[in-house]
Amino acid sequence: MLINCVAYQEGKKLCDISVEAISDYLALPNCFVWVALADPQPGELATMKEEFGLHELAVEDALRGNQRPKIEEYGDSLFAVVRMVELNGDELVLGELDVFVGPNYVLSARNNATKGFLGVRARAEREPHLLTMGSAFVLYAVMDAVVDRYFPVVDMLESELEKIEDRIFTEGSQSRDNIERLYELKRKVMQLRHAVVPLIDQVGKLYGGRVPPGFEHTQEYFRDIHDHLYRIQSTLDTMRDTIATAIQVHLSMVAIEAGEVNKRLAAWAAIFAVLTAFAGIYGMNFEFMPELKWRFGYPVAIIAMASVCGYLYYRFKKSGWL
Amino acid sequence: MLINCVAYQEGKKLCDISVEAISDYLALPNCFVWVALADPQPGELATMKEEFGLHELAVEDALRGNQRPKIEEYGDSLFAVVRMVELNGDELVLGELDVFVGPNYVLSARNNATKGFLGVRARAEREPHLLTMGSAFVLYAVMDAVVDRYFPVVDMLESELEKIEDRIFTEGSQSRDNIERLYELKRKVMQLRHAVVPLIDQVGKLYGGRVPPGFEHTQEYFRDIHDHLYRIQSTLDTMRDTIATAIQVHLSMVAIEAGEVNKRLAAWAAIFAVLTAFAGIYGMNFEFMPELKWRFGYPVAIIAMASVCGYLYYRFKKSGWL
Amino acid sequence: MLINCVAYQEGKKLCDISVEAISDYLALPNCFVWVALADPQPGELATMKEEFGLHELAVEDALRGNQRPKIEEYGDSLFAVVRMVELNGDELVLGELDVFVGPNYVLSARNNATKGFLGVRARAEREPHLLTMGSAFVLYAVMDAVVDRYFPVVDMLESELEKIEDRIFTEGSQSRDNIERLYELKRKVMQLRHAVVPLIDQVGKLYGGRVPPGFEHTQEYFRDIHDHLYRIQSTLDTMRDTIATAIQVHLSMVAIEAGEVNKRLAAWAAIFAVLTAFAGIYGMNFEFMPELKWRFGYPVAIIAMASVCGYLYYRFKKSGWL
Amino acid sequence: MLINCVAYQEGKKLCDISVEAISDYLALPNCFVWVALADPQPGELATMKEEFGLHELAVEDALRGNQRPKIEEYGDSLFAVVRMVELNGDELVLGELDVFVGPNYVLSARNNATKGFLGVRARAEREPHLLTMGSAFVLYAVMDAVVDRYFPVVDMLESELEKIEDRIFTEGSQSRDNIERLYELKRKVMQLRHAVVPLIDQVGKLYGGRVPPGFEHTQEYFRDIHDHLYRIQSTLDTMRDTIATAIQVHLSMVAIEAGEVNKRLAAWAAIFAVLTAFAGIYGMNFEFMPELKWRFGYPVAIIAMASVCGYLYYRFKKSGWL
Amino acid sequence: MLINCVAYQEGKKLCDISVEAISDYLALPNCFVWVALADPQPGELATMKEEFGLHELAVEDALRGNQRPKIEEYGDSLFAVVRMVELNGDELVLGELDVFVGPNYVLSARNNATKGFLGVRARAEREPHLLTMGSAFVLYAVMDAVVDRYFPVVDMLESELEKIEDRIFTEGSQSRDNIERLYELKRKVMQLRHAVVPLIDQVGKLYGGRVPPGFEHTQEYFRDIHDHLYRIQSTLDTMRDTIATAIQVHLSMVAIEAGEVNKRLAAWAAIFAVLTAFAGIYGMNFEFMPELKWRFGYPVAIIAMASVCGYLYYRFKKSGWL
Repeated sequence: MLINCVAYQEGKKLCDISVEAISDYLALPNCFVWVALADPQPGELATMKEEFGLHELAVEDALRGNQRPKIEEYGDSLFAVVRMVELNGDELVLGELDVFVGPNYVLSARNNATKGFLGVRARAEREPHLLTMGSAFVLYAVMDAVVDRYFPVVDMLESELEKIEDRIFTEGSQSRDNIERLYELKRKVMQLRHAVVPLIDQVGKLYGGRVPPGFEHTQEYFRDIHDHLYRIQSTLDTMRDTIATAIQVHLSMVAIEAGEVNKRLAAWAAIFAVLTAFAGIYGMNFEFMPELKWRFGYPVAIIAMASVCGYLYYRFKKSGWL
Repeated sequence: MLINCVAYQEGKKLCDISVEAISDYLALPNCFVWVALADPQPGELATMKEEFGLHELAVEDALRGNQRPKIEEYGDSLFAVVRMVELNGDELVLGELDVFVGPNYVLSARNNATKGFLGVRARAEREPHLLTMGSAFVLYAVMDAVVDRYFPVVDMLESELEKIEDRIFTEGSQSRDNIERLYELKRKVMQLRHAVVPLIDQVGKLYGGRVPPGFEHTQEYFRDIHDHLYRIQSTLDTMRDTIATAIQVHLSMVAIEAGEVNKRLAAWAAIFAVLTAFAGIYGMNFEFMPELKWRFGYPVAIIAMASVCGYLYYRFKKSGWL
Repeated sequence: MLINCVAYQEGKKLCDISVEAISDYLALPNCFVWVALADPQPGELATMKEEFGLHELAVEDALRGNQRPKIEEYGDSLFAVVRMVELNGDELVLGELDVFVGPNYVLSARNNATKGFLGVRARAEREPHLLTMGSAFVLYAVMDAVVDRYFPVVDMLESELEKIEDRIFTEGSQSRDNIERLYELKRKVMQLRHAVVPLIDQVGKLYGGRVPPGFEHTQEYFRDIHDHLYRIQSTLDTMRDTIATAIQVHLSMVAIEAGEVNKRLAAWAAIFAVLTAFAGIYGMNFEFMPELKWRFGYPVAIIAMASVCGYLYYRFKKSGWL
Repeated sequence: MLINCVAYQEGKKLCDISVEAISDYLALPNCFVWVALADPQPGELATMKEEFGLHELAVEDALRGNQRPKIEEYGDSLFAVVRMVELNGDELVLGELDVFVGPNYVLSARNNATKGFLGVRARAEREPHLLTMGSAFVLYAVMDAVVDRYFPVVDMLESELEKIEDRIFTEGSQSRDNIERLYELKRKVMQLRHAVVPLIDQVGKLYGGRVPPGFEHTQEYFRDIHDHLYRIQSTLDTMRDTIATAIQVHLSMVAIEAGEVNKRLAAWAAIFAVLTAFAGIYGMNFEFMPELKWRFGYPVAIIAMASVCGYLYYRFKKSGWL
Repeated sequence: MLINCVAYQEGKKLCDISVEAISDYLALPNCFVWVALADPQPGELATMKEEFGLHELAVEDALRGNQRPKIEEYGDSLFAVVRMVELNGDELVLGELDVFVGPNYVLSARNNATKGFLGVRARAEREPHLLTMGSAFVLYAVMDAVVDRYFPVVDMLESELEKIEDRIFTEGSQSRDNIERLYELKRKVMQLRHAVVPLIDQVGKLYGGRVPPGFEHTQEYFRDIHDHLYRIQSTLDTMRDTIATAIQVHLSMVAIEAGEVNKRLAAWAAIFAVLTAFAGIYGMNFEFMPELKWRFGYPVAIIAMASVCGYLYYRFKKSGWL
C-alpha cells in the first residue's frame, strides 16, 4: 500500500507526486524523492524496482521478509533492514522496515507494523537545514524513530522482571507461575536482542572510517543511533544474565522452602510418634502392669505424654523447625 | 556415480559431453564444464583429478569425507566443502557436498544425500545472463540450494522445541521424556550448527576485500548466502541457549512438584497421625479411664477425632497444602 | 545551577567571571575557561551551548541524561559522559557527569550527585605546571576524581560479599536471606560494571595511537585512569563470577542440610516405628500369648524395647545420622 | 636414545650416518640430515645442540618437557613442541614431541610415547618428490602423523560419552557411577583439548601471510593439519558442552526419580496410615461400641478396611503414583 | 629498606656503591646500576625518583601498591609491576614487585614478599655475556624468577583439587567441607589468575613487532616468560572450569545420596507400617474374631508378620533400596 510519495528539493517539499512521475523528479538537480509503503505487494515492489533501479537480491529480501537487521551496499545505493518492535498487550509484535536509499531517493517499506512514520516526515519537513543532507538524513530519521520505539519495550520488560523478582522473594517461591514468567520474559528479551544486536555492527558502517558516498555529513547522527542501540544491548544483556540468575535463585528458594516443609513435617511426625508409642505401650495386654491398676495412672500418663510432647514442641520451636 | 557432465559457453548449454571429452572443452574459449557426481568412487575421483588437474590434498579430503565445511584456494582453483542436512523422520542425515571450482570448470560431488541439484542446474540454464558469470555463479547456485535446505530443518527443530516447552509448563514436569527430548534436540542443534558456523567465515572469503580471481562479480550473491547462514546461526544459538534454560526450568518444575507432593504427604500424614494417636490413647488399658465407661464416650470420641481431623483438613486446604 | 565559572591563563587562575563574559575570555591567548554546573536546567545548557558553540546532539544527550559512559569527538571539541556512583546507606546512587571539552574551555555538568569537584579545582590550581596542559588536564582531573570515588564502592561490595560468604558456611545455609542478599549484591555489581566497562574503551581513545588534538601531553594521565578502570573491572568480574558460584554453593548447602534433616528424621522415625510395632504386637488380643501372663513379662518387654531402640540410636549416632 | 640419523640429498636417502658425521653432511649442498631421538638424555641433547647450533632456550624447554604445544622461530631455525596422545586402556598417556627444524636438518625427540615415526620416514622416503621440499616437509610429515593419532582418541571419547548417555536415559539415573564417569570423561576431553587448541594458532604461522623461510612450498600441507586440528577442536568443544548438559540432565533425572520414589512412599504410607487408623479405632476400649458386639463386625471391618485401601490403591495407580 | 646497590660495566660487577654515588655511575659509558629495595619507604622512593629521574605517576603507583600487573613505557624508561605469590601454609600471600628500568639502571622494589632476588643477582653475575645485554636482561631475570615461583603454587592448587575430587567420589559427598574447600580453592585460583593473566598481554609488548629501545636482544627471553605465563593461565582456566564442574557434580552426589537415604527410609517405613497394621488389626476389640481364640493364633500371626516383612525386606534388598 502506498502511503505517500513526495519530492524534495534543497530540503523543502516540492509536492506529492504520482509513482509514474518519480523518474522525472529523479532527474532534477538537488532533488530527492521519498516514498513510503506499508505491507507492500510484490507488484508494488516490482514497480519501485523499475523506477529506482533497485538490486534484484535486495528486492527479493524485502519480499521474503524476516531478514536479520542489516545495512548492505549495492553499488551507490544502500539497502537497510531494521526490525520494528511493537507491544500488543504483553506480546511483542515483530515487524520489519526495509529502506532502499539511493543518492536521490528513499523508499521505505514497513511490514507487519501498525505505527508509521508520518510524524517523522512532518518533523523532517519542519527542519529544512537538516533535510538538505538528503536521503542519508531521511534514513537516519526513520531509523532513529524505529530505535526510539525500542525503549518503551525495554522498559516494559524491565518492569516485568522487577515484578517477578518481588514475587520470588516476598510471596514465597512455590509458584510455578514465576518460573514460567521468567522463561517467557527471557524469550522476549532474546527476541528484542535479535532486533538490536546485529544492527549495532551494521550501523557502525555509517560513521567513522570509510562511509558510503552521501553519508559523510550524517556520521554524528548515526553514531547517536549506534549509541542508543549499544545502550539497549547492554540493558538486554544484563536482563538476560539477571533472568538466568533469577531462575537459579528461584530453584534455591524452592529447595529452601522444601527444606522448611520437611523440617516441620519431621517435627510433627516426631511429636505424634512419641504420643503413639506411649499410647501403644500402655495398650499392651500384659497382666502385670502395675501402673494400669493405679487410681491416677491414666491422668498421670496423659500428663506425662503431654509434657513430653510439649517439651518437644518447645525444642522444635526454639530451633526454628516449627 | 556420474550424474551429468555438461559444457556451457557464454551462459548457454552446449551439450552433454563424455568424461573423456572434458579436456577438449576446457580448451575452448569462454567455455566451462559442469560435472556432477553422487557418492563418487575413488576411481571416478581419480579420473576427474586427471581431467581437471585437481590438487592431491583436496581429492584426498573429498575421498575421506567427513570434513568440516570450508572453502580453500589451491592456486587458481577452489575447493569447497559444505554439509548437506536432510531430514529422515526425526533424525538428521548429514551428507557432504564437495565442489571443485576452477576458472573453467565446476565439479560437484555429493555424498550420503538423497536430494541432488538437477533443479539448480535447470534454473541456472534458464538464466543465461547469470550463467555467463561462469563457474563462480555455479558454486553460488549450488551452495545457495544447500543453505536453503537448512531452513526447513531449523523450522522442524524450532517446532520440536515449542512442543517440549508446552509440555513442560502444561502437562506437569514429571516426565523423564521431556528431558530426554531436550537433550536429543540439543544434539541436533549442535549437529546443524557444526554444518553452518564454520561455513560463515569461509563464505566471508568470497566477498568484500580480496576475493579469489573469477569471483569479482558474484560478491553480492555470496554475501546473500553469508547472510542466510548468519541468520541460521543466530537462530541456532538462541535455541541452544533456550534449551539450556529449559533444562534448568525443567529441574525447577520437578523440584516444585516434589515440594507439592511433599506437602500433601505431610498434610495427610499429620491428619492420620492425629487420628492414630487419639485412637491409641483410648486403646490404653488403664483401669480407671472414666470416659471409657460413658454411654456416649465412643460417639463423642469419634466426633472429636473427626472434628480435629476436619479442622486440620480445612487448614491445610486453605494454606494450599492439599 | 552554576557552581563556578573561572578563567585561567598559563595555568594560573585569572578570576571568577560571569557567564556573559565567557566569550571575551575565550578570545584571549593561552587562556581557558572552566565552568561547573550542577543539575543544569535546559535554559542554562542553552546559554552554554551558545557561549561555547556546543554540538546539538551532545547537548541533547546531556539534557536527556542516563547516557552510557562515552567520550565522543565533535570536530575539535570532546563530549564525555561518565557515571558518578555514590553510596546512600547500602544503596548505590547513580549520577552522571557530562563534560564538554574544547581547545579553550571545559564545561562540566553533574546530575544527581551530591559530591562536587571543588577539591579537584583547588588541587589543580595549586599545580600550575600541570594546569598549563589546558582543558585536557582538567578533563583528566575531573575524571580521575570520579574514578577514584568508585573504589570505596567496590570495597563496600567486596566486604558485603565476604559477610555473605561467612554466613553461608558458618551459620547454616537455611536462610532465604543469604540468597536474596546475593541477588541484590549481583544487581549492584552489574550497576557499577555498567558505569565502568564502557568507559574503558572510551578512555583508550585518549592515549596511545591517535589522540584528539590537545591531548598529546596528557596521554600518561589517561593511561593511568584506564588502568584504574581496568582494575575495577577485573575486580567486578571476579565478584560476578564468585556470586554465581556462591549461589550454586548455597544451593548445595541447602541440599546438604535437607539431606541431614532427612536422615535425622529417618532415624527417629525408625526408632519410634520399632517401639510402636513392639507395643502393637503385645497389644494384640490373642488368648494364648504366654508372655503376657509372665510375672516379669512387662518389665522384660520394656527393657527389650529400650535395648533395641538404644542399639538403633547408637548405630545411627555412629554413622552420623543423628 | 638415538633412533636413527640419516642424510638425504635432493629427496633421496644418502645413508645412515654417525652423530659425529652430522656436521660434514650439513655442509653438503641440497642435503639435509634427519635425526630421531626417543626419550633423549641431557647428554644427547647437549651433543645435538653443538652439532646443529640449537638455541639454548629451545634446548632447555626440550629438557624440561611438559611444554605447551608451540612453534617458535629462533633466527632461521624453528622449534616445535607437539603433544603426543596415546591410549593405555582407558587412560590417556601424554607424551611430547620436540622438533628442531633448520634449513638443512630436522631433529625430532619424542618423550614418553611408545609409538615412533619409522613408518613416517619410510613413507617419506618412498616419495622423493615431496622430500625435496626439505626439512619443512619432514616437519609436516611428523606433525601430520601425530595429529592423525589424535583421531582414534577422540573416537574413543565419543563412544564413551554415548555409552554414558545410554545409561543415563535407560538404566535409571540413580548410579553414582554415571556422574563419576562423566567427570572423568570431561577431564580427558580437557587433556586432549590442551594438546590440540594451542597448536591451532601455532600451525597458523606456517601458512598464509608471512611464513618462515623454507616453508613457502608446504603451506597447503600445514593448512591441512590446521584443518584437522580445527575439526578435532570443534568435536571436543561439542563434547565439553554435551558433558556439561549431561551432568545437568543427570541431576534432573535423579530429581525425577527421587520424586517418583517420594510419591510411591507417600502412597503406601497413606494406605497403611488408613489401615492403622481404622484398626486403632476398633482397638479403643470404650465399653459401648456396638459394632464390636456384632456377629459380623470383624469381617465387615476387615472388608471395609480392605475396600478403602483398595480404593486408595486404585486411585494412586491411576494417577501414576504407584 | 635498601637491599643492595651495585654498578655493572660491560656485564661485570664494578662494586657496591652508595645511593649518593648513583648519579656518578650513571654517567659512565656501558655502565648500569642495579638497585634492589624491599618494602620501600616513601622517603626512599623519593630519593630514587630524584637519582634516576623516575616519572611521577609511576612512583605514585609504586607507593600506593596493589596495582594490576603491567608494563608501562614512560619515555625511554619502563615501569613494570608484577605480583609475587608466596605460600604461607595453605594461604596465598600476594606481594608486589615494582621494577623501574631505564637505559642504564634497574630499580626493583618488592613489597610484602619474604623471598628476595639475591640468587637471581648471583646467577646473573656468573654469566657476564648475558649481563652485557644490560638492564633489559636484568628485568628478564627478575621477572623469570617471579614467574618460576608461580609454578609450585599452581602445583599446590592442583593437588588440593585432586584431594577434593577423591573425597567427592570416595568418602561420600555428604560433607559440607568439600563444597567449602572447593569454594576456597576457586578463590585462590582466581587470585593467582589475577596475577598471571594481565601480565601475559603486557609481556607481549617486549617481543615481536615493536619493542621498547634496549629490548631488541632479549625478545626470545621474554617470549619464554610469555610462554610460561600462558601455560599457567591455561592450567588455571582448566582448574576453574573443573571446580565449577565439581561443584555441580557434588550437588548431584548429594542428590543421589539423598535419594538413597530416602529409599532406605521408605523401605523400612513400609516394613514397619505393615507390622504395625497387622498388630493393629489383631488388637481390635471385636468379640467375634475366631483367630484370637485359636491355640496357635499368636505364633501363626507372628510367623505371618515375620514372613511378610521378610518378603518385603528381600524385595527391597533385591531392588537395591536397602
